[in-house]
Amino acid sequence: MEERLKQQMEFLLEADKSKLIGRQTYIHDASRKENDAEHAWHLALMAYLLREHAKEPIDVAKTMFMVLIHDLVEIDAGDTFAYDEAGNATKREREMRAADRIFHLLPEDQAQEMRDVWEEFESKTTPEARFARTLDKLQPVMLNDATDGLAWREHGVYAEQVLRLNEKNKDGSETLWEYVQMLIARNAQKGNLK
Amino acid sequence: MEERLKQQMEFLLEADKSKLIGRQTYIHDASRKENDAEHAWHLALMAYLLREHAKEPIDVAKTMFMVLIHDLVEIDAGDTFAYDEAGNATKREREMRAADRIFHLLPEDQAQEMRDVWEEFESKTTPEARFARTLDKLQPVMLNDATDGLAWREHGVYAEQVLRLNEKNKDGSETLWEYVQMLIARNAQKGNLK
Repeated sequence: MEERLKQQMEFLLEADKSKLIGRQTYIHDASRKENDAEHAWHLALMAYLLREHAKEPIDVAKTMFMVLIHDLVEIDAGDTFAYDEAGNATKREREMRAADRIFHLLPEDQAQEMRDVWEEFESKTTPEARFARTLDKLQPVMLNDATDGLAWREHGVYAEQVLRLNEKNKDGSETLWEYVQMLIARNAQKGNLK
Repeated sequence: MEERLKQQMEFLLEADKSKLIGRQTYIHDASRKENDAEHAWHLALMAYLLREHAKEPIDVAKTMFMVLIHDLVEIDAGDTFAYDEAGNATKREREMRAADRIFHLLPEDQAQEMRDVWEEFESKTTPEARFARTLDKLQPVMLNDATDGLAWREHGVYAEQVLRLNEKNKDGSETLWEYVQMLIARNAQKGNLK
């Protein structure tokens, strides 16, 4: 038991590095960009409070766990901006190596569980993964909408790109897919998206 | 439905302010202090991964939700350092007013649920609340241990104070109570605690 707890605590300390992994999205008052830990916290809260909008019934604890850990691989692999094509070409390989190292700080059964849940998220094979991905794409749209599209304008992002990314991940929720289309249209109209 | 989703999204944007509520604890590399959203993310991850150490069986989704929202009231009430006696004397009243405003951005049923879960956390009336509080006190000890007691040394904190605070919240887990005593003893020995 003692060795098991030691491994768990070591992992939890390693996970703390997520607080230093920067994302491109600005927080609500545009004062700074958010980091992976903050983003994951926001998604977990959304998973719980918006679960009634999931297209299929979901296990909410599993969905929350999934979003809490979905970006941990970025501790080694770094954050890849959604609209960075070159970065996205090598992302999968970099993240696989990171998962091998980071998850295996945990006791073997928990490392395996985390690997499975992370792969599920990546491959969208379950209702939980589909809902988690819908949220993962909606959350930065919500924050861009609140900050007059600051991150979008900095990167010269097109409405079409945001729409395509959200459409690819719309399978988790019909209601949220409708909602995000409204946000995108509103920001295109305002000139926050090209 | 549309009005309901609008209220939920408004709440989720308000909750974003947690990312600007500073805590006294430094993150793993002592480069800066953590904020409420990061702290809550860390606790939710701990709740899931350490749940086998809970003294009584817990509903893990509820525990994760509880820790994700337990500090939201600080958006209005501010963070009160655990060892600030004057601040802690007025804390309850400030936080009650904050709960009234912030939770009621949500649809009424979810506002009530959040209020109940927050009150549960505050009053330690359930296994989930007791485990959540044990984690809430353990997490800053873990980070202080990793940063050579930086926040403790800045505030001149006594080993006796940290021990008392964790002892008051030890009911969630025997294993973690033992573990935190070991961490406190180690830091007292190193001179990180007075």
